[in-house]
Amino acid sequence: MKFKKHVFICTNERTDGRECCGEKRGMELVETFKKEIKNRKLAVEIRAQRAGCIDVCANGPALVVYPEGVFYGRVTPGDVQEIVESHLINNIPVERLKLNF
Amino acid sequence: MKFKKHVFICTNERTDGRECCGEKRGMELVETFKKEIKNRKLAVEIRAQRAGCIDVCANGPALVVYPEGVFYGRVTPGDVQEIVESHLINNIPVERLKLNF
Repeated sequence: MKFKKHVFICTNERTDGRECCGEKRGMELVETFKKEIKNRKLAVEIRAQRAGCIDVCANGPALVVYPEGVFYGRVTPGDVQEIVESHLINNIPVERLKLNF
Repeated sequence: MKFKKHVFICTNERTDGRECCGEKRGMELVETFKKEIKNRKLAVEIRAQRAGCIDVCANGPALVVYPEGVFYGRVTPGDVQEIVESHLINNIPVERLKLNF
């Protein structure tokens, strides 16, 4: 596997007024994850990046962490450090933000 | 896991002339995957979507299939049916297109 953890953050923008993750809020998360991962020198093993709609629009801003396939919803930049430390580094998903299907 | 297979197709466009997947070629793949998945009535379990750069630019057009983390490079719309049938449905990756790291 190329990356130990691969994080896809939705930056999709709906134009009809329905709930969505949104480009601005999504890109804030992308930048916050990238900075956090770079500062910890983890960029070779862990990648966070933008993606299109991941199909959980009403729970946005949303993201998914693979290979586990754990989805998170209503994530703010203030949550990123906890997701990186707990889930991406220590393999413990952040239950309070997890979406359960 | 929300999706049995989740396919992320790079649609990133570099503007400096260096090799990349490219928006036009990436979106052609996204549309071809979506059509193939929809026609086979697999859209609840299998999702294919656009994503930003997945860090294998020189091998574009590229995509990654999770949860396995199998990367494919130099994919054309003509390869999509084989990837869907062999890998997404029958769990046998398409070796001739696989990128090995």
